[in-house]
Amino acid sequence: MESYENFEEKVKKISNIQQAAAVLGWDQEVMMPEEGIKPRSQQKSALTSVTHGLMTDKKLGELIEQLEDEDLSEEQRANIREVKREKKKAVKVPEDLLKKISETESEAVDAWKKSREQDDFQKFAPHLEKMVELKREYAGHIDPDEEPYKVLFKDFEPFIRFETMEEILQTLKDRLTEITEKIKESDSSLEKGAFKGQFSEEKQKKLNRELVEALNFDFSRGRLDVSTHPFTSGNRYDTRITTRYNEQDLSKSILPTVHETGHGLYNQGLPEESFGVPAGSSRDLSVHESQSRLWENHVARSKPFMKFLLPKLREKFPEQFEEVTADECYESVNQVYEDNPIRVEADELTYHLHIVVRFELGKELVNGDIAVEELPEKWNDKMEQYLGFRPENDAEGCLQDIHWGWGNFGYFPTYTVGSVLAAQIFEAASQDIDSLDQKIEEGEFDPLLEWLRENIHSKGKVLKTEDLIKEATGRKPTPEPFISYIEEKYSDLYSL
Amino acid sequence: MESYENFEEKVKKISNIQQAAAVLGWDQEVMMPEEGIKPRSQQKSALTSVTHGLMTDKKLGELIEQLEDEDLSEEQRANIREVKREKKKAVKVPEDLLKKISETESEAVDAWKKSREQDDFQKFAPHLEKMVELKREYAGHIDPDEEPYKVLFKDFEPFIRFETMEEILQTLKDRLTEITEKIKESDSSLEKGAFKGQFSEEKQKKLNRELVEALNFDFSRGRLDVSTHPFTSGNRYDTRITTRYNEQDLSKSILPTVHETGHGLYNQGLPEESFGVPAGSSRDLSVHESQSRLWENHVARSKPFMKFLLPKLREKFPEQFEEVTADECYESVNQVYEDNPIRVEADELTYHLHIVVRFELGKELVNGDIAVEELPEKWNDKMEQYLGFRPENDAEGCLQDIHWGWGNFGYFPTYTVGSVLAAQIFEAASQDIDSLDQKIEEGEFDPLLEWLRENIHSKGKVLKTEDLIKEATGRKPTPEPFISYIEEKYSDLYSL
Repeated sequence: MESYENFEEKVKKISNIQQAAAVLGWDQEVMMPEEGIKPRSQQKSALTSVTHGLMTDKKLGELIEQLEDEDLSEEQRANIREVKREKKKAVKVPEDLLKKISETESEAVDAWKKSREQDDFQKFAPHLEKMVELKREYAGHIDPDEEPYKVLFKDFEPFIRFETMEEILQTLKDRLTEITEKIKESDSSLEKGAFKGQFSEEKQKKLNRELVEALNFDFSRGRLDVSTHPFTSGNRYDTRITTRYNEQDLSKSILPTVHETGHGLYNQGLPEESFGVPAGSSRDLSVHESQSRLWENHVARSKPFMKFLLPKLREKFPEQFEEVTADECYESVNQVYEDNPIRVEADELTYHLHIVVRFELGKELVNGDIAVEELPEKWNDKMEQYLGFRPENDAEGCLQDIHWGWGNFGYFPTYTVGSVLAAQIFEAASQDIDSLDQKIEEGEFDPLLEWLRENIHSKGKVLKTEDLIKEATGRKPTPEPFISYIEEKYSDLYSL
Repeated sequence: MESYENFEEKVKKISNIQQAAAVLGWDQEVMMPEEGIKPRSQQKSALTSVTHGLMTDKKLGELIEQLEDEDLSEEQRANIREVKREKKKAVKVPEDLLKKISETESEAVDAWKKSREQDDFQKFAPHLEKMVELKREYAGHIDPDEEPYKVLFKDFEPFIRFETMEEILQTLKDRLTEITEKIKESDSSLEKGAFKGQFSEEKQKKLNRELVEALNFDFSRGRLDVSTHPFTSGNRYDTRITTRYNEQDLSKSILPTVHETGHGLYNQGLPEESFGVPAGSSRDLSVHESQSRLWENHVARSKPFMKFLLPKLREKFPEQFEEVTADECYESVNQVYEDNPIRVEADELTYHLHIVVRFELGKELVNGDIAVEELPEKWNDKMEQYLGFRPENDAEGCLQDIHWGWGNFGYFPTYTVGSVLAAQIFEAASQDIDSLDQKIEEGEFDPLLEWLRENIHSKGKVLKTEDLIKEATGRKPTPEPFISYIEEKYSDLYSL
């Protein structure tokens, strides 16, 4: 098996350089002094160029061809399948175009910041236009016969069919608009302020660290730090999560922290023996997001979790939580915040209507069905149609997210698919684990983690996404468990 | 000048990858969780292999050959000279040998830790033997006709003649043993405890940050953190220094902090327009060390600095410093600690006798004049001969430093050459700057920094080392200013 070993060696080298780039990315967000950005961009672009060179190396291609005729294990075949797919893309897309996209991204991010600050869409528009064109060109290189948006979605999610994703979004759009309307019409009013008050960053840091430890995140293989936007990066030996602190609202650190812990636990649970090859790497965005949302939504936003959490809150902040009940905590993190224009502040329900707006408009932009100029108007129309109100300005409208400035068309749907998979996975885990609710209430999180390790984390990229979900839950990806979960939760909360 | 531009582009790519590796190195010492070491070693080795590949690239060699016939600026010629030299080495030394050295280094470092902890030289000996052999082989590839130790010194210091270094060490050995003996015989007893007491890490952190700011280190282009062994890394846009805190001794953070600030100011002062090529990079180890020692020894260990520092100490630690005088502070950081076996705890005077021991033994080891087995005995003999006492055990003897375990033979002399250059440079700066002592007392450090920027930092690698020193000070490297400085300082301190 010399040729397989040669193949793995080449793949591991690429992986090592990508990991190095990830350390640079983490450092940039968490540690780097402001003026460090100039060389940092150059360093990252040098590493990208090196990995592109290694990925398009002819010898690697020859090894893959040779190995396809050999008798290999399931894992080995998966490694070849995944690398072959990435390689195919790398060969098709000219390095020059990648460079242009990366340069346009930097300019677009700068322009976007100003544009949003000044609520002036015209400052961002030309950069967005350029990005739309470049990404259309990119998609054309990969598959000139396919709708560009489909190609870009596949770029993020190679093994979730476009139709599966579309069906999920369509179902959620129909069902969630219904529930949202019912809530608007209901007379129930939920507790909103259980987590509001004055909470020093120092004490919050201790609380969050304790929480992350309680969830079995391994600090000998990871870190918890602060950044403007929470994120997770790293590998099974060194996974780094970040959060942020708001001294007036404690839930604004706890929920993102648990979310990122979910991502972190996935990384830490990847199989050691396949480190550095696809079989030891996490499946794509939707599955990663399923892990973060499972811990954030199904664990941390649940009643049992609030019963587990409250004594800890009282210990750290006795004055603020003396009189607060677990039910009030539960209501506070689950209220539907009406007429909220901002995606990242949305509840579990309306969140997906925000995503539908982005999915539909992103698709129309990239497929050439609408012009960038039309975006602000179309955005507000859709908000009105699905959420029942128009944003007051573009800063709170189509300028709120940076993803398109990054060129990430086809990315937003993975947030919703991730939530849907989280519900499906959590439902299956609940069936396998005795009295999971009670275990959560008692802070006994390892049975759930063990279940996820066995059914999701340890599988790496060996299975294709839809097969992974089917093996873990008995069904292909389906929005049903999510819809049931939401209907039950919100009917109860709002006495619908 | 298309070929010159191509040349620069290739060199900058190599530099970018080396900078990325430096970020990984900093992170490893300051941020990385313990289990992160496994992938980190692999990441670093992948980057080393990439830079080796780029450095030995034939096209780069052809460009250099082509450019040597062209009419270029002084700076351009310097860039070619420096890259050509590094390239020559890279081509001569097989990548396989570099890999072996790097693997042996990892094993040797592990063995050295245990060996020192258990005071058992035999645990380290076989690894040291292997390393000596490999480095001899390495030297043989670069120049088979030269003494291996000379080749290894040149590896660190291409433009300080071996004879210059030897003469410096010989002079210091002769003159410093004399002064040390006089001090031992003198009746003077110096204040030792001005910086001893109880100092919380938190307050020390604030004090050190203020000091680093006072010395004009630019925090928009750098950081100050904590690590086991203080060090500096990074580039002109992102220079990171570290220090450590001892809650019982304040001088144990202040002096290393100023030392590293000296390194940091050098990095930050490198010329912007030549970023990423040798003309924008720091000269080698000795010159870098001259900058750290200048700020540590000639500034921070001086009487004027103590007058500047004392009010700050009183502000942060009023109880401890209420009754302490600047003279007592001065004595405390300059006392000669008799019969001290440890290099890193030595004063400015005996420090260099510790280095002479390492220079002589390192040379004998690598040149095959003594066997690794003989090292403990020979070490103690030399300590007795030059410093007047025998270490009590090997942990405090030949096992105290890790440098040889790293394979860094030829490195130790650069510490002494750095101190000597510091004295020579400070003498020249003192002649050019009006009442420098008074300026230091008043915390006015920018005239000195400006002088260093103009005469050292801004030159990058354009001049060869001995020429750089000659242009800055009017003389080639010479131990005289250092000897005068030491004689004057210690005669005064000990009333010799």
